[in-house]
Amino acid sequence: MSAGEDRQEAFLTAAATLLGAEHVSLGDDVEDYLDAYALGDARKFLPAGAVRPAEVPEVQALVRLANEHAVALWPIGRGKNLGYGGPAPRLPGSVVIDLGRMNRVVTVDDETAYAIVEPGVSFFDLHEELQVRTSRLWASVPDLGWGSVVGNALERGYGYTAHGDHQQYVCGLEVVLPTGELIRTGMGALPGSEVWALYKGGFGPGFEGMFMQSNLGIVTKMGVWLMPRPERFSACRITIDSEAALPQLVDAMRELKLDGTIDGVVNAANAVGVAAGQSPRERWYAGSGVVPDDVVDTIAGDLGIGRWNVKCSLYGSEALLDVKLARLREVVGRIPGSRVVENRYDGDTAADDIPPGDHFAAGIPGMLLAGGVRWRANGPSGAHIGLCPLSPLTGEHVVAASRIMREHIEAAGFDYIGGWLGTARHAVNVLMIFFDAADPVESQKVATAFTELVVKLAEHGYGEYRAHIEFMDLVAAQFTYNDSSLLEFTRRLKGALDPNGILAPGKQGVWPSHAPTPVQGPAS
Amino acid sequence: MSAGEDRQEAFLTAAATLLGAEHVSLGDDVEDYLDAYALGDARKFLPAGAVRPAEVPEVQALVRLANEHAVALWPIGRGKNLGYGGPAPRLPGSVVIDLGRMNRVVTVDDETAYAIVEPGVSFFDLHEELQVRTSRLWASVPDLGWGSVVGNALERGYGYTAHGDHQQYVCGLEVVLPTGELIRTGMGALPGSEVWALYKGGFGPGFEGMFMQSNLGIVTKMGVWLMPRPERFSACRITIDSEAALPQLVDAMRELKLDGTIDGVVNAANAVGVAAGQSPRERWYAGSGVVPDDVVDTIAGDLGIGRWNVKCSLYGSEALLDVKLARLREVVGRIPGSRVVENRYDGDTAADDIPPGDHFAAGIPGMLLAGGVRWRANGPSGAHIGLCPLSPLTGEHVVAASRIMREHIEAAGFDYIGGWLGTARHAVNVLMIFFDAADPVESQKVATAFTELVVKLAEHGYGEYRAHIEFMDLVAAQFTYNDSSLLEFTRRLKGALDPNGILAPGKQGVWPSHAPTPVQGPAS
Repeated sequence: MSAGEDRQEAFLTAAATLLGAEHVSLGDDVEDYLDAYALGDARKFLPAGAVRPAEVPEVQALVRLANEHAVALWPIGRGKNLGYGGPAPRLPGSVVIDLGRMNRVVTVDDETAYAIVEPGVSFFDLHEELQVRTSRLWASVPDLGWGSVVGNALERGYGYTAHGDHQQYVCGLEVVLPTGELIRTGMGALPGSEVWALYKGGFGPGFEGMFMQSNLGIVTKMGVWLMPRPERFSACRITIDSEAALPQLVDAMRELKLDGTIDGVVNAANAVGVAAGQSPRERWYAGSGVVPDDVVDTIAGDLGIGRWNVKCSLYGSEALLDVKLARLREVVGRIPGSRVVENRYDGDTAADDIPPGDHFAAGIPGMLLAGGVRWRANGPSGAHIGLCPLSPLTGEHVVAASRIMREHIEAAGFDYIGGWLGTARHAVNVLMIFFDAADPVESQKVATAFTELVVKLAEHGYGEYRAHIEFMDLVAAQFTYNDSSLLEFTRRLKGALDPNGILAPGKQGVWPSHAPTPVQGPAS
Repeated sequence: MSAGEDRQEAFLTAAATLLGAEHVSLGDDVEDYLDAYALGDARKFLPAGAVRPAEVPEVQALVRLANEHAVALWPIGRGKNLGYGGPAPRLPGSVVIDLGRMNRVVTVDDETAYAIVEPGVSFFDLHEELQVRTSRLWASVPDLGWGSVVGNALERGYGYTAHGDHQQYVCGLEVVLPTGELIRTGMGALPGSEVWALYKGGFGPGFEGMFMQSNLGIVTKMGVWLMPRPERFSACRITIDSEAALPQLVDAMRELKLDGTIDGVVNAANAVGVAAGQSPRERWYAGSGVVPDDVVDTIAGDLGIGRWNVKCSLYGSEALLDVKLARLREVVGRIPGSRVVENRYDGDTAADDIPPGDHFAAGIPGMLLAGGVRWRANGPSGAHIGLCPLSPLTGEHVVAASRIMREHIEAAGFDYIGGWLGTARHAVNVLMIFFDAADPVESQKVATAFTELVVKLAEHGYGEYRAHIEFMDLVAAQFTYNDSSLLEFTRRLKGALDPNGILAPGKQGVWPSHAPTPVQGPAS
């Protein structure tokens, strides 16, 4: 038994005394915390164990124990950040601190439209709680409803309602620091204040951003702004029938976001991407190479979709929606080969009376797109990884980023499953790579193409805003302005706040200078 | 000459060599950096000198010199944060680092609607630059146009367009750290990225908030989102003719903000507040006590205003504004004694063709309300100080906060000049105290009432979001959650990032543990 294993064992024994043995995972049970979509052997990110606290003081006690035993902790909410490592830690031998039992919706305030939630609350949980309380409020939800509301927002995820840029609707955090102290940000530090989750700021510096994609603290409560149910809402689909019109489509979306016509985050997918969400590849193409262009036309024709397909949402009274839709149709109508389909609903329409495809606009969580992973591997080993370089939301940039990704991934033998999310100003350019995790050759091809693309995209000024644990160091290494002074700065904070380096070492490329000796070195 | 004076002299001599003597202030010239609205003797916050760099490397060099000589620096943009100390440092004997010469508008991007500005850029400067470039973009401006765009946003100021909650439209900072290193936040750390000022976030933790109301760095560039000029816009005024209707007015404003009817920040003032903005007190009342209620009625009648008066702005096409105004009139129409006046303009109307009272809605900077300071002292010694506790934007809370402030300040012999700003969820409850800075007895009365009110409001859960240098420690002391763990946390960061404690010691109550020995102890 190595010294590292001794430390881990001592920590897990103490944790079992603290939490009860049923809330500690050891041995084979830690396989529950492996990455289902790992590139290659998932066990290269094998945790040493897992602990499941239910209360904030337990989190504090575990953090103190981790310092005492020099054991690294890797916090997860629901562990559903698939494509980015799921529940698996960056540093093998870390102990996963699984916050899934901390799943209380602490506050829902209908009047000022917010909730305070713990990290174990999923989008399903929050939606159900709002129903139970007959709240007038809606939450924004991402494609899959099983993830953590807190985890998604802290990792800067997106949904599709007017509150779809999730990080922007975070207001107020409760955080356990790496040395065990508990803080509340902003006005949460004033006893009796009711604006902790209403006012972004406080007296002095603001710290919400610092705990996003961060290993500087464990968030144990988060305020999130919700939107009051609108009188009416529109789920819109906009399509174009040729690639040539993509720049115009992007520019139109930006202008309609900037002038407030479109309320929700714009979500675009190419034809293959839409097909992948609802059918296996073999339905369309039996060849081993990239799906040919004429097959893409067949896909578009058969599914009644465009070469590019936008979903977006609008909210308001009937009269307001009439005006907004007229504007949207006017602007989109200038694009050759474009179509607009609008489905309009009352705000209080029951979920069952809304087609699942339109649930995105009403913040109804689902698992609609979970089947996409079967595009290439129609079995349990179907997996995906996402590459998401950011660019300005302009036709010029989105086309340029798309072209780089398409050429490279097709050369590697994979279909270009592309999309982009649009807020008013920036685009998240999405390349979704579906692969068979059981096939080591295919997995290696993905890893190689991914690595090359991160570097190539960065050379064009397109940087990733998140990364799979396998690629965190690679992505961080692209941020080289002024001798990587931002990363150095983050590391200095890490050293000051986490002197023993116990919290999520290596997350987003931030390694502590005095890390616990890894049981196994950094894996990539 | 004390040891402190030796150090200061050595620093200022070195700074003169670096910048040129004309960019260093010594001796009597430092009086330019005193607080014009000081409570009592302005010289209790006397700086030791001032230095005026023009370039980022000069700022870095000055910071390194300050570490070398153990001299405290107090950064200002335009020094116009009147009511909060203006250009004067919290710690007497600090050297003001006046960034007024760094006044470049570095970037304006019409397509994706943002600018990057240096801290010396005033709202007048930015507006002029947008005119010169015939940009389609509007900036949001606060009441007075002479202040720094950067300074205002970092101090979490407000304006009145759709971008009026200024801190929320900050995206991307360049910062000189207290030890002299230069960082760019978020995507600014990726060479060639064009989304530094478009994407709030980055890879890893986000740091914009940490440099707001902060002594952890000197911001040398800031990205700010601007709004494209709308087709049409409405400057609206909503009045109620009795205090009794205030709760309904507040609740109506919240609902109209939440449902997107009102785009801009809601700005409410009571009748005496409106009168103070345009006339001396003696026009209305010659008595020494508080303006009596029947005189307030006279004021409202003569000026054609309400007991409470809301200004707000709406943007869009003619058709959109018609729908929004119909909704606004419907909701406000339910409030007894309410009136709505709407002035509607084309987005490209020249500033000269818009009455100054409506400039707020179009982001046209001015000095319209600067006369308010003459309410009690019709001469150069007229001054003000603002108390701004935050509450939820609900009728119940706004009335409660207003009542506490009114009763207390009237008992102290001052008129209740009240207002509130409303975003969708929180209210900034404003008490403006106008006083004669040349009258030491009156100044002392203000200081006493202010101190008592900060404590009393905090007991009710209403905390300040900013404070005059005189009261920074007092306000910070109210944030006592969990043994003041947030303040302790901030101090720990301060120690890690500014080991010699040279940057803005005491700002927002954050004192370094190893501060430069003050020439004079902390003043309050």
